[in-house]
Amino acid sequence: MAKQRKLNVMFRVWLFAGEEKLLGKGRVELLERIKKTGSITNAAKEMKMSYRQAWQMVEEMNERAETPLVEKRLGGKSGGGTIVTEAGENAIIEFHKLVDSVSEFINEQSKNINL
Amino acid sequence: MAKQRKLNVMFRVWLFAGEEKLLGKGRVELLERIKKTGSITNAAKEMKMSYRQAWQMVEEMNERAETPLVEKRLGGKSGGGTIVTEAGENAIIEFHKLVDSVSEFINEQSKNINL
Repeated sequence: MAKQRKLNVMFRVWLFAGEEKLLGKGRVELLERIKKTGSITNAAKEMKMSYRQAWQMVEEMNERAETPLVEKRLGGKSGGGTIVTEAGENAIIEFHKLVDSVSEFINEQSKNINL
Repeated sequence: MAKQRKLNVMFRVWLFAGEEKLLGKGRVELLERIKKTGSITNAAKEMKMSYRQAWQMVEEMNERAETPLVEKRLGGKSGGGTIVTEAGENAIIEFHKLVDSVSEFINEQSKNINL
């Protein structure tokens, strides 16, 4: 009575700073969308979350990272806006690197599962 | 302004049969507790979930696995009860093997994260 459905392994990873969540899939997506739109408001809209929720996520990331990942640039000729810092760009890259390597490892491992 | 909090990577894995969740941490714990107590009722109690919820998880696992992971043994001299099948025991072992190998891999990888 083999049902022959393909076995798939799904996973999620989170980076914690000590006991506190620093980064996960959603937070990294938020950083990427802030980078793209230059605005927490627009990033939040794209992710269908409230501004308040997005702002809180940014605050938490900034508090928990060694240096802030997102900064407000006020006024000036360019009109200001919100930017992802160098540390933020680096966090995006490091998170994707981690996810990709885990994904590759799990794909290999899943061939050995005997179910 | 380095805060020097230790960076930790957390993860979760799930086994899917096609598009449907077959096993995760909670389901494997349920199987282990059914094995230990010989009863869905007692396993559910230990996990502070309702009988209905536990029963539904068992039903889903049985439907989605190639062969049932849990069986009811009715009456007889031994009084019957609920047992984890050989396929169920195997599922518990394979899930732990997967989690352990991913854990080891991630511990190695986390040394390379530059944040």
